[in-house]
Amino acid sequence: MSEIYNFSAGPSVFPKSVLLQAQQELLDWQGSGQSVLEMSHRGNYFPTIAEQLESDLRALMAIPDNYKLLFLQGGASAQFSLIPQNILRGKSSACYVKTGAWSEKAVIDAQNFCDVLVSASSENSGYTTVPEESTWVLDEQAAYLHYTTNETIHGVEFSKIPNAKGLPLVADMSSNILSRVIDVSRYGLIYAGTQKNMGPAGVTVVIVREDLLGYASKTTPPVFDYQEQAKSHSMLNTPATYNWYLVGLVLKWLKAQGGVAAMEQFNNAKAAKLYQAIDQSTLYSNPVDVSYRSRMNVPFILADANLDQVFLKSAETQGLFELRGHRSVGGMRASIYNAMPEAGVKALIDFMIEFERTH
Amino acid sequence: MSEIYNFSAGPSVFPKSVLLQAQQELLDWQGSGQSVLEMSHRGNYFPTIAEQLESDLRALMAIPDNYKLLFLQGGASAQFSLIPQNILRGKSSACYVKTGAWSEKAVIDAQNFCDVLVSASSENSGYTTVPEESTWVLDEQAAYLHYTTNETIHGVEFSKIPNAKGLPLVADMSSNILSRVIDVSRYGLIYAGTQKNMGPAGVTVVIVREDLLGYASKTTPPVFDYQEQAKSHSMLNTPATYNWYLVGLVLKWLKAQGGVAAMEQFNNAKAAKLYQAIDQSTLYSNPVDVSYRSRMNVPFILADANLDQVFLKSAETQGLFELRGHRSVGGMRASIYNAMPEAGVKALIDFMIEFERTH
Repeated sequence: MSEIYNFSAGPSVFPKSVLLQAQQELLDWQGSGQSVLEMSHRGNYFPTIAEQLESDLRALMAIPDNYKLLFLQGGASAQFSLIPQNILRGKSSACYVKTGAWSEKAVIDAQNFCDVLVSASSENSGYTTVPEESTWVLDEQAAYLHYTTNETIHGVEFSKIPNAKGLPLVADMSSNILSRVIDVSRYGLIYAGTQKNMGPAGVTVVIVREDLLGYASKTTPPVFDYQEQAKSHSMLNTPATYNWYLVGLVLKWLKAQGGVAAMEQFNNAKAAKLYQAIDQSTLYSNPVDVSYRSRMNVPFILADANLDQVFLKSAETQGLFELRGHRSVGGMRASIYNAMPEAGVKALIDFMIEFERTH
Repeated sequence: MSEIYNFSAGPSVFPKSVLLQAQQELLDWQGSGQSVLEMSHRGNYFPTIAEQLESDLRALMAIPDNYKLLFLQGGASAQFSLIPQNILRGKSSACYVKTGAWSEKAVIDAQNFCDVLVSASSENSGYTTVPEESTWVLDEQAAYLHYTTNETIHGVEFSKIPNAKGLPLVADMSSNILSRVIDVSRYGLIYAGTQKNMGPAGVTVVIVREDLLGYASKTTPPVFDYQEQAKSHSMLNTPATYNWYLVGLVLKWLKAQGGVAAMEQFNNAKAAKLYQAIDQSTLYSNPVDVSYRSRMNVPFILADANLDQVFLKSAETQGLFELRGHRSVGGMRASIYNAMPEAGVKALIDFMIEFERTH
């Protein structure tokens, strides 16, 4: 098949050069005679891959020394339960900000472990904005303040880091990690599934400040106890070795692109073009408050929903895949993560203009 | 590098043909224009891969219809906690048989959730045998009876399925699943990490009888609630898609070899040859009761431990890798899973004979 562009919300597009390198060394990693798939995590070669992964992520995000990096399994959804299990620290409540489907799920799961104070919610707007920070209600006795930096389904992204007023700030960054420069020292804990901006599904990155370690509840499985895994460099049991390797390749690619700052400019430009095309049309529209539009996931609806199927089918004939919106919001969604080339966004815009002209 | 043989206990050797197929279709899966790495788990292609995976495993193990198959994350070690969290069913105790390092870990983690009755233990023998079944102490009020079918570190394998006297039988089969024909209907639950006999690290297979579903404790993260994942075909959140695909390729290879029955004969023959070589030597010895010697993991010690390093170094020059025994038992260990070809075992035996002759 000729060139296609994959707008999937995750698992999602890889840099082509990463796929080529993975293919080239699949049977023999750097002259070792072994596939990374077959390497013992405690053998001659894999520890080098693991150390490089950690040091590259530390460098790319400028992670301070008093933070531990964990590479776990189970997805960000598992963290919805594992975060309260690990960092309640004897406290009985936690604050959550609701800005879409994912932060909503985080609230539901946390309620099994503590009292959840919903500090702010944009549910009444249909999750099309972020509530004004001055209206947030924080409890200074709470264990932490949780929010979702980018809502993959609703296409809502925070434009700046909120003020947690002394509470440890906890962020689900699954769908925009490494897409813009952030100050890690403002956070108590950052977590992200890797299947959007970092590589394949199957790894969950947790970046946690050291003072939050050591409080896991007794019912936390040891392989999900942050302190235990920090001590073991995330190798308390066999890690998802090949997935780590692939994340490592994506990080190397990211460094070669100029790192996160370069990626931020690139992402801002791609998203601006797509939103401009939407705003200039009469067929397409995006419901999100302009200040909080996601640069990663761009949902849009067609003025005539009867055209949805035709739009999707026609797009596929042009090599534009996975544009269907999430079933809970309908319409379309174009996910344009780091690895989506500018040519993909241009091809989508060209198609949208042509489709509008002919329908 | 020329041909090597990898005796790692896991992650471990892949069938060469599987690596070649993965390499060949890494950038374009069956003309889709997409890498499996980039596929949405809810897109056009991946559901086919997932369905094939489940139906192949059902066929290979002859899994009855009243069992659900789950493909989770976290490794078998996570299940040490998740099994009691899911299937205690309001009961306060569970029975465990201790035959080595892995069943010992399972006991320790279960103790956070219930009273553990150690029904039998071979600890006093240094874990070199399986306690006579007639001596096992079972509690008929217990929720289940847990055992480890093959102890990867100590090289101890059950030769038959124990009689659980009405208790649901729960088995960690991480290191010998698919290596011999078993009657799944004798079990309540079977679990296994995939990184030994099934493919890459990063997937945990759980095969669970339906009547044990629906009892998860409130502190079980939903993505580890067996009932919830059974309803969602293990897609309650994004699964480790590429790992599923690779496990699927290994299962297809297994079918092409003649399935599990053919593999059992092949494994028995490989192990018999290696144990014979050990028993016929004066330099090498294996401490395990002959009736319970593992066909998968063959530990052996050298009469002179000062030769250990020389043995390992010399072996590597002959392309024989990862023969170091686990640090807790010392000596050597050759893991000879399904994918280890007969030529690999022969090369090891030839080397061992030559090494003994010259040292």
